[in-house]
Amino acid sequence: MNTSDVNSYATSHAPPRPRVVIVGCGFGGLEATRTLARTDVEITLIDRTNHHLFQPLLYQVATAGLAAPAISAPIRHILRKQMQQGRLTVLLGEVVAIEAAARAVVLNDGVRIPYDHLIVATGATHSYFGRDEWARYAPGLKTLADAFDLRNRVLKAFEKAERYPEDRQDWMSFAVIGGGPTGVEMAGTMAEIAHHTLYDEFRRIDSRQARVLLIEGADRILGSYPPELSERARHQLEKLKVEVCTGCRVIGIDAEGVTVQPAEGEPYQLRARTVVWAAGVAGSPLGKSLQAATGATLDRAGRVLVEPDLSLPGHPEIHVIGDLATAKSYPKQGEPTPVPGVSPSAKQMGRHAAANIQRRLRGEATRPFHYIDYGSLATIGRKAAVAQVDLPLLGTVRFSGYPAWLFWLFVHIYFLIGFRNRLMVLTDWAWAYWTFQRNARVVVEPAQAAATVPPAPLETPR
Amino acid sequence: MNTSDVNSYATSHAPPRPRVVIVGCGFGGLEATRTLARTDVEITLIDRTNHHLFQPLLYQVATAGLAAPAISAPIRHILRKQMQQGRLTVLLGEVVAIEAAARAVVLNDGVRIPYDHLIVATGATHSYFGRDEWARYAPGLKTLADAFDLRNRVLKAFEKAERYPEDRQDWMSFAVIGGGPTGVEMAGTMAEIAHHTLYDEFRRIDSRQARVLLIEGADRILGSYPPELSERARHQLEKLKVEVCTGCRVIGIDAEGVTVQPAEGEPYQLRARTVVWAAGVAGSPLGKSLQAATGATLDRAGRVLVEPDLSLPGHPEIHVIGDLATAKSYPKQGEPTPVPGVSPSAKQMGRHAAANIQRRLRGEATRPFHYIDYGSLATIGRKAAVAQVDLPLLGTVRFSGYPAWLFWLFVHIYFLIGFRNRLMVLTDWAWAYWTFQRNARVVVEPAQAAATVPPAPLETPR
Repeated sequence: MNTSDVNSYATSHAPPRPRVVIVGCGFGGLEATRTLARTDVEITLIDRTNHHLFQPLLYQVATAGLAAPAISAPIRHILRKQMQQGRLTVLLGEVVAIEAAARAVVLNDGVRIPYDHLIVATGATHSYFGRDEWARYAPGLKTLADAFDLRNRVLKAFEKAERYPEDRQDWMSFAVIGGGPTGVEMAGTMAEIAHHTLYDEFRRIDSRQARVLLIEGADRILGSYPPELSERARHQLEKLKVEVCTGCRVIGIDAEGVTVQPAEGEPYQLRARTVVWAAGVAGSPLGKSLQAATGATLDRAGRVLVEPDLSLPGHPEIHVIGDLATAKSYPKQGEPTPVPGVSPSAKQMGRHAAANIQRRLRGEATRPFHYIDYGSLATIGRKAAVAQVDLPLLGTVRFSGYPAWLFWLFVHIYFLIGFRNRLMVLTDWAWAYWTFQRNARVVVEPAQAAATVPPAPLETPR
Repeated sequence: MNTSDVNSYATSHAPPRPRVVIVGCGFGGLEATRTLARTDVEITLIDRTNHHLFQPLLYQVATAGLAAPAISAPIRHILRKQMQQGRLTVLLGEVVAIEAAARAVVLNDGVRIPYDHLIVATGATHSYFGRDEWARYAPGLKTLADAFDLRNRVLKAFEKAERYPEDRQDWMSFAVIGGGPTGVEMAGTMAEIAHHTLYDEFRRIDSRQARVLLIEGADRILGSYPPELSERARHQLEKLKVEVCTGCRVIGIDAEGVTVQPAEGEPYQLRARTVVWAAGVAGSPLGKSLQAATGATLDRAGRVLVEPDLSLPGHPEIHVIGDLATAKSYPKQGEPTPVPGVSPSAKQMGRHAAANIQRRLRGEATRPFHYIDYGSLATIGRKAAVAQVDLPLLGTVRFSGYPAWLFWLFVHIYFLIGFRNRLMVLTDWAWAYWTFQRNARVVVEPAQAAATVPPAPLETPR
């Protein structure tokens, strides 16, 4: 019964409207949906959560700077106009397999949804490079649940330090693995928490004694940025008292801390009870399903190799976009270049895949994807950031410090979903800026819910 | 080691300072701490969470109206001045037993903390009247974890209704058990969500077809209010399309719905996939420990009977306050009256117990508790509330509807902890009022955190 019903989502309005299924409502899937909804097609958008997440600010939730609702908007609300136009159906569900031959996706409850065109945009998850046993000691940061888990760990570490003197320094040591933008943001913000937010709130510890380590395997942080900006970022991190260890390959993680192999010399252990994983990403598990169904090629990180037009080899009806795809950008002239895994590229791929589907529906040829790079931007902490912007006439401009931080602030608020969230984030940040306070310092143990069932009293129901 | 260290919290500054241990940082514990901190004592405040929760607005988090940080403030932050004065230590921990003879409390990690004076303020939890098997079908609302669980259930019920036509009406039926202030608030707000927030966001269902049932065993809702206000509340709920079933005793709850026994006639089932428990409260489990340690008497709901001065019979050094206590109010003249389980009474008991400890330290006699009742206030939904206020000269004033709602709004914002939260809540409510939107519609599955560990790719660490 479910099957017939949910198939009817895609079929009831189907003939003659082409059925487009879009899996994942991140930056790529959302843009693709918005673009395609202008055409007369029947779109089914499937996501395993009910909200679009503004991932660039997820670290702010993990560090108690923002509440979850400030960076997540209900998918149904964002897209309600498209739904009222009768072209879009939104489904809360998880796609577990893709049947390319039958042209259908399979949900975790067994329901099959057929498609004429498919866009897979399920993004990336963190990768432990085959050492999944590290996951429990060094959680990554991809979902709101991850952010809550990390927020609990960080805040509770200071509580443990206050309680247990013998482990004090270990509880007050925090290691961030991976010197990319996320790792740099996490390390900078954790240093802020220790030095500004908590410094006057304990009896036995001085939170300013906390150690924040940023561990990077390469010889510099922000490896995708120009060396000049990496240098400035390192300098600004060190001003925030973050210890930056570059050239340190992580070879072990356990409850005690992180074991690293320096460029030369013996491996040694960096003791830290709280470890954050910001090192590796891998394509979402759905990539494997695509490989099985279509023979698509995956790169070492499990991302799907796509054609210049973002479709799968031999399957022009299937597009893969965003972090799940290893795509190349094809400029008017010159060699194709790899597309970076950032939100602007996901959005551009979403629009491009949608446009190519529209072209095929008009019987036109699809076009190769061309990524327009507006520059790079990474924040480090209060008044600290690095930026490289490509301007039409001025060419490439690089700047850092306070101006870069202000620029980062307004770019992120501008791109936030919905005026409401912009307002929330702006007030939260204004407050945090003036008071140094972070207002989302809530530790919630999911277990509590069960714990509240009391021993049965003798009273009888009214 | 832990023991010695944590004991040192209470002992290191001890001689000659008396050691006061306060368990629980709800309204009662917080007020007691603030009052006692003005005296030269060594206070240890223990709570199992890191935040003080503004429970009167918890239903707003459960119904996606407010984000958790808006109604919870870090205990360390609220009390940082008292800590800097060196009179207060805040501990994150759960007290599992009280050793009255040894004058010490025992934490869940086995640590013992000795006291000269003890204030127990661990409040209440929900009670299923001995039918704990109902808990999984009808969760209650006492902690933030409860609120997140309920928010997930309500939002997902509409998603299920959209997906599964055969169960549509059951998924779109919501039952609230218990017609007290919490139940009335929950039912009214759920009706608002169905009729205003979600009505244009689905393809297969009209959320306005949702059924919201309020089930009360007594013959009227808001039983602790004058009948006149109960009648007005019922009228306002029915205007919001809530079906109010009074005189319906609940005799069964399962995955299908609620079985009720009407005043006369046969029992029947009210089908609803989402059921909320707002019926019974019971004293926190620590009451049993007090009973075992001191022979204290518990009432049928597991609340501790206290002396007129809020101390335990035979144990003048132990005070029990707030929802965990069955206290009486002793007016200057006239008979003692029972103290209601509301936040103003918890605050007043906290101040009174603190004052009595100060009196004993000065060698004075303790005084009986006198509860000052400023009136009753319950909100029903948008522009709907009932109020009874006792004014110095005018006497008792009763009003309802829009004025009562405005009054409720400002009273609650006024009593919120901290300017920051007042600002957050005010902007959130202003927004919700003008747009009918609720901005905390985030479904987060704790399981997601685990689910994000990917199949191991072949890449090696940098």
